[in-house]
Amino acid sequence: MDVNVTKPTFVVDRAICRRNIARMAAKARAHNLKFRPHFKTHQSAVVGEWFREAGVTAITVSSLSMARYFASAGWNDITIAFPVNLREIGDINRLASEISLNLLVENEISMNFLVKKLSAPVGIYIEADTGYHRTGVDPLKPRVIDQMLEVLRKGDNLVFRGFLSHSGQTYSARSVDDIHVRHADVLLKTRSLKNHYREEWPGLEISLGDTPACSVCNNWDSVDEIRPGNFVFYDLMQLSLGACSIDDIAVRVMCPVVSKQIMRNEVVVYGGAVHLSKEFMIGDNGKRSYGGVCLPGGSAGAGGSDHHFSGAVMGLKDRNDLIFGKILSDGTWVAGLSQEHGIIRGTFDEIRMIYPGDLLEIIPVHSCLAADLAGYYLTTEGDRIEKIRKSSD
Amino acid sequence: MDVNVTKPTFVVDRAICRRNIARMAAKARAHNLKFRPHFKTHQSAVVGEWFREAGVTAITVSSLSMARYFASAGWNDITIAFPVNLREIGDINRLASEISLNLLVENEISMNFLVKKLSAPVGIYIEADTGYHRTGVDPLKPRVIDQMLEVLRKGDNLVFRGFLSHSGQTYSARSVDDIHVRHADVLLKTRSLKNHYREEWPGLEISLGDTPACSVCNNWDSVDEIRPGNFVFYDLMQLSLGACSIDDIAVRVMCPVVSKQIMRNEVVVYGGAVHLSKEFMIGDNGKRSYGGVCLPGGSAGAGGSDHHFSGAVMGLKDRNDLIFGKILSDGTWVAGLSQEHGIIRGTFDEIRMIYPGDLLEIIPVHSCLAADLAGYYLTTEGDRIEKIRKSSD
Repeated sequence: MDVNVTKPTFVVDRAICRRNIARMAAKARAHNLKFRPHFKTHQSAVVGEWFREAGVTAITVSSLSMARYFASAGWNDITIAFPVNLREIGDINRLASEISLNLLVENEISMNFLVKKLSAPVGIYIEADTGYHRTGVDPLKPRVIDQMLEVLRKGDNLVFRGFLSHSGQTYSARSVDDIHVRHADVLLKTRSLKNHYREEWPGLEISLGDTPACSVCNNWDSVDEIRPGNFVFYDLMQLSLGACSIDDIAVRVMCPVVSKQIMRNEVVVYGGAVHLSKEFMIGDNGKRSYGGVCLPGGSAGAGGSDHHFSGAVMGLKDRNDLIFGKILSDGTWVAGLSQEHGIIRGTFDEIRMIYPGDLLEIIPVHSCLAADLAGYYLTTEGDRIEKIRKSSD
Repeated sequence: MDVNVTKPTFVVDRAICRRNIARMAAKARAHNLKFRPHFKTHQSAVVGEWFREAGVTAITVSSLSMARYFASAGWNDITIAFPVNLREIGDINRLASEISLNLLVENEISMNFLVKKLSAPVGIYIEADTGYHRTGVDPLKPRVIDQMLEVLRKGDNLVFRGFLSHSGQTYSARSVDDIHVRHADVLLKTRSLKNHYREEWPGLEISLGDTPACSVCNNWDSVDEIRPGNFVFYDLMQLSLGACSIDDIAVRVMCPVVSKQIMRNEVVVYGGAVHLSKEFMIGDNGKRSYGGVCLPGGSAGAGGSDHHFSGAVMGLKDRNDLIFGKILSDGTWVAGLSQEHGIIRGTFDEIRMIYPGDLLEIIPVHSCLAADLAGYYLTTEGDRIEKIRKSSD
């Protein structure tokens, strides 16, 4: 495949994505869990089809805009796993009349509002805060939950589905064991909720969904449904958590090198905050990392060819294999980002091989945010993949 | 104007923008400086027209994509103030044959490449690193510059314009005095460059361009052109630097409240990293801030109406004046961001007034990045403003 990458480009390895999807789908089946993957990571109808091929029929999104986009791509069982936004009630009613829609409610004001304003049947999950402390009801306060359910019963269009939680606390785990401990703590809470409410609501479900726990944990007692999203792409953060291996990371941001500052052991790429996002992690060296750095797989090794060392004008490669390349050492990383600049700091031996005009691959720290920033994706086979457009409504 | 804001929306006050533009244009005139504003901040042909009305005819951008977008909007004198990306040589040549294009070169490899590959005349600025240490040539190394100029002379299509620098070090200033000191240090370097080269290159120009210095400094000795960008919108970072007043900030991200966690003195808005970017600053309290928080100007005060306190179902306001509102105390700020969630932590007295369904205004930390994330802007008069589309090429 001949594709000349000329500017920062979000590249997806379809085979790795499919393997990640198949693995998670198999795990859900093995544990008798409904698999409702979160599509906020890729936001693409094309990538959605890869899930459909793996037998997925129900999905999760984090906004009504995404729900509408995927509904128009043929998905008709969608959970918006974000506290319901009352201001969008008009569009909620329209969509609820067309597809099977589930909403997330975490306070009595919103429940009351839906009771009065919903004009089509909607599944309702109550959000439980199982330890992330962002949104949701404290499961230790059944009085609050009881009051919400009492309000819910007044609404003809509200069908209680169960409790949904996002255990984002696994993202601050320091080891796989730590993920297990945090997940076990979540299960204590969801089990207790289920036991408390299942007599009155026999069909109630527990829905959980973070990629770290879904990737490494094998105890899903009390859980009915999983909603991981990031696992389709994975990223540097998941790698560092132990949730995936380097070979599971399905995405790169390909970036042209524009500057070399050998006295600082740095190269600068065209590829900045508007391509990678300013999400960072603290590396083993105690410094902020905005991404991992790889040499492109299709090149002979950036800077390895004679033209560099001869001092002659460098020719651009006509052909860039988009096969993913080898990651550089831990000593070479994306150390800073401006709007369009990415500053890569590295070991002398690695930086010296890289020249203006070369292409580097960046592994994003957080693939969801880097994917959101891309206008489209390119596959490693060179196919352009469309995704939701921010300007569409 | 009746506009019902239902989801995170980037809102621009046109009158404030025009005032900011007029003030900077007047300053450039007063100091006999060419005003070549940086359009990477707004990336919108419509906002560009506000500059044209103020007499601007030449602009700066940070990518070839932006240059093409603005060229198609009728701008025909454009500097790409980013180290030339050799991989885009085909499109560079096409654009250079249509408009007056200036490129930035900061290494001999790139200069050599341009000498061989440029097929239309292009203005060349050599990037000088005046202390930011991101890209550019050290002005204390005239040998490096001399060699680059020697190569440049071989090219029929390369016209040397002068030296360009981005003194981004003003962004880490701690006070206005600090900005002055850093700017004075830059001027020592640009003056010395100009003195050294002007005999051989009599028409050479010095082009500088950071918003902090352009906003507060009045010594522009040796400088011929300024290229500030952020000043059209300004933001929380510029406010904190002393580069603008609160009344100069022309943008807000309007966000619906979806959750209230009064036990933590928090509310959560629909408005996250994909709307504000993960750019943060360290507030006076030593904590990360991802934005300032205002009550919308058009509301009676969010939560101030009876329906909240009566516990009845809250009605949505039919009419939202988009007039900017009053900023809350320093004790209330955007303390965290997920992909779509914004966590606002605050004083009890402020948080208690805010309820799900309300609208809050967020002042972005870095308006360039928040603007980049928006699919379009809305003016405070309710007009939709189109901008460049990431998926367009």
